[in-house]
Amino acid sequence: MKQSRLFSKTRKEAPKDEVSKNAQLLIRAGFVHKEMAGVYTFLPLGLRVLEKIKQIIREELNKVGGQEMKMTALQTKDVWEKTDRWREDLDDGIWFRTHLNNETELGLAFTHEEALTNIMANFVSSYKDLPIYAYQFQTKFRNELRAKSGLLRGREFLMKDLYDFSLDEKQHKEFYERMKDVYKKIFNRLGIGDRTFLTISNGGTFSKYSFEFQTVCDAGEDILVLDEEKGVAINKDDFNDEVCKDFNIKKEDYNFVEKKSAEVGDIYNLGEKYAKAIGLTYKDKDGKDKPVFMGSYGMGVPRIMAVITELFSDENGIIWPEAVAPYKVHLISINKNEEAEKIYRELEQSGIEVLFDDREDVAPGEKFADADLIGCPYRLVVSAKTLKEDSVEIKRRDSDKTKLIEIGKLIKNLNN
Amino acid sequence: MKQSRLFSKTRKEAPKDEVSKNAQLLIRAGFVHKEMAGVYTFLPLGLRVLEKIKQIIREELNKVGGQEMKMTALQTKDVWEKTDRWREDLDDGIWFRTHLNNETELGLAFTHEEALTNIMANFVSSYKDLPIYAYQFQTKFRNELRAKSGLLRGREFLMKDLYDFSLDEKQHKEFYERMKDVYKKIFNRLGIGDRTFLTISNGGTFSKYSFEFQTVCDAGEDILVLDEEKGVAINKDDFNDEVCKDFNIKKEDYNFVEKKSAEVGDIYNLGEKYAKAIGLTYKDKDGKDKPVFMGSYGMGVPRIMAVITELFSDENGIIWPEAVAPYKVHLISINKNEEAEKIYRELEQSGIEVLFDDREDVAPGEKFADADLIGCPYRLVVSAKTLKEDSVEIKRRDSDKTKLIEIGKLIKNLNN
Repeated sequence: MKQSRLFSKTRKEAPKDEVSKNAQLLIRAGFVHKEMAGVYTFLPLGLRVLEKIKQIIREELNKVGGQEMKMTALQTKDVWEKTDRWREDLDDGIWFRTHLNNETELGLAFTHEEALTNIMANFVSSYKDLPIYAYQFQTKFRNELRAKSGLLRGREFLMKDLYDFSLDEKQHKEFYERMKDVYKKIFNRLGIGDRTFLTISNGGTFSKYSFEFQTVCDAGEDILVLDEEKGVAINKDDFNDEVCKDFNIKKEDYNFVEKKSAEVGDIYNLGEKYAKAIGLTYKDKDGKDKPVFMGSYGMGVPRIMAVITELFSDENGIIWPEAVAPYKVHLISINKNEEAEKIYRELEQSGIEVLFDDREDVAPGEKFADADLIGCPYRLVVSAKTLKEDSVEIKRRDSDKTKLIEIGKLIKNLNN
Repeated sequence: MKQSRLFSKTRKEAPKDEVSKNAQLLIRAGFVHKEMAGVYTFLPLGLRVLEKIKQIIREELNKVGGQEMKMTALQTKDVWEKTDRWREDLDDGIWFRTHLNNETELGLAFTHEEALTNIMANFVSSYKDLPIYAYQFQTKFRNELRAKSGLLRGREFLMKDLYDFSLDEKQHKEFYERMKDVYKKIFNRLGIGDRTFLTISNGGTFSKYSFEFQTVCDAGEDILVLDEEKGVAINKDDFNDEVCKDFNIKKEDYNFVEKKSAEVGDIYNLGEKYAKAIGLTYKDKDGKDKPVFMGSYGMGVPRIMAVITELFSDENGIIWPEAVAPYKVHLISINKNEEAEKIYRELEQSGIEVLFDDREDVAPGEKFADADLIGCPYRLVVSAKTLKEDSVEIKRRDSDKTKLIEIGKLIKNLNN
């Protein structure tokens, strides 16, 4: 991509009403545009990051048999009334409500347990149909009272939600345990694995405990009680003697400290609640009707982008992990030069993703500042000076060291 | 994909309230689920088709410099009031309205001219910044009074909308003409090019005429006045002496007939209306402020899927064009057989997309009926009989002829 054509531009200041670091950086670097608090447009650079995060998640979910689909935001009330989640006052008024022109009341889905359970009732009849693992990347609408954390808490945001439909608690639990590993693998690939902890928390309505994945992060809205070395984490709200007893945690054996953290995923045992309320049953081997046992597995995609931005940035800008960077390489041409253009074409042809700063009326210092702000992992500079040595200057975004690489060896070097 | 694991199942009957052929077929074949009139969930097979259509569109738009982004559904009223499109009564009440918990009124975007013009005001300042071509695949919400045409008219549906931001009418027009060819290319790749016509229609507010792409289709909601041979089409609503004069059409030179048709794309000259109302200007070479000249280019993705379904189907089911088929091959195993499983793995490894009907408790006749209903381009049957000849039976969905192909030659044959 030629930067002279990229319509988004970097800016020195974020909007004054934007107080979160992640949104400030992502706005300044031209990744997102703020429509209102908690509602962000993804500009071309931002969409590329979002799609890379999605693709990593998708690949890992497909490996364990996930089937991708896409549900709707508009919902009628009937099925939600069966679980008593149509209420106006639910979670401080989380529903966005609207209506058809004939006055039929509708809501914008903040989650999809009810909708999917209802769909599955068309397809599940026998024990042979189970288990099913269905997921989607879909826009959720949540009428949050406060949305001051940038992309960490959205009113309209893309969520990955997977649901398991199992024969019984045993089959559900096997998958649930498997998903813990899948989530770990995803967070590792996203570059935040070493700071992300499986965290014991309140189970809500369906079971005594549930698990969240929490990433240690100053901007987070949660607090962990954490022994990093032993990898044990409990949500501070739920840290008490009972938890310790239930999980056989002797406080004196641990070096617990409190750390701010952001929830990047949650995995729930939903039990038979939805299946019973909505009528999702199957016939077992003996021909007896049984309710389906369910679980849900969420991940907010922009929130993950926000956490990465919060963690991997310095005073000059973002430092994207390579797996989710909008482009691997930011190629900078000093003054107009044909050789830079040629290198750009060669890199593209060899499949390397390049943002090429070909702008002619921009000073080198400004180009360097932009490259730091946008945060691609490798910065390449082509100037008369480097060309004298048949070379390109290379610098990693996370390092201050520059070195020259012969042009002929560049692609091989970048592919290592 | 193993059909024994695919959670959607075919069904004999569509829901009684579903009167359109496209939705009936897509529901019966397990591609979509109806949430309410004009609102459909995409099940795994349906999402695959949708993504293939998107990818074809994306490739062609990127070739002409389109930059992909993603805007938001939630909109505040300020910018829409500037163009007088916030009105309750706009297009018979097309807005879905909602509000924040603090009572701030919001709407769900039915289009994005205002929102994007507003965003561009952050990035456009000089003539050097133009032209810009930005597009998205994004869910539109339209509070349609009637939604009885299945996926042809959605209340919530995925739209590709591209907008051009040009220096002046001349620069806009060059791109506008280019987009006519881009659209033709897209419809050709989608398999509906020979039935799709650039159609003269009413220009709306901004110019005397605009152009639509209309596909001849009995389920369509429009009527064309069409000379198919000469490739001249006018929307019947706008066919009058004035049009004929303006486009130099002598009626006696044409064999006009009337045909029902569905609009699959529209391309609009928006002029300076949005830029002027919202304040999107640039400095020209002389430092003078000028409004940006715009155009918009829409395409409803599920509508295209619906049109394809309407056109390419018979009494037994859908007949997908290869470019958008959920899978290229539907491989059917008669009884359990190891050889079919081996062929399945080999096809997948060679990159051929296969739906493998490995179900053990389903009769061959039912499997054949399912294959016809789902409509993959090639049906392969592996049975004891074909294996005796070291072969697989192959049949195209659009033909009755079957023939045997040696297993060793299968992949080469399918890749031709």
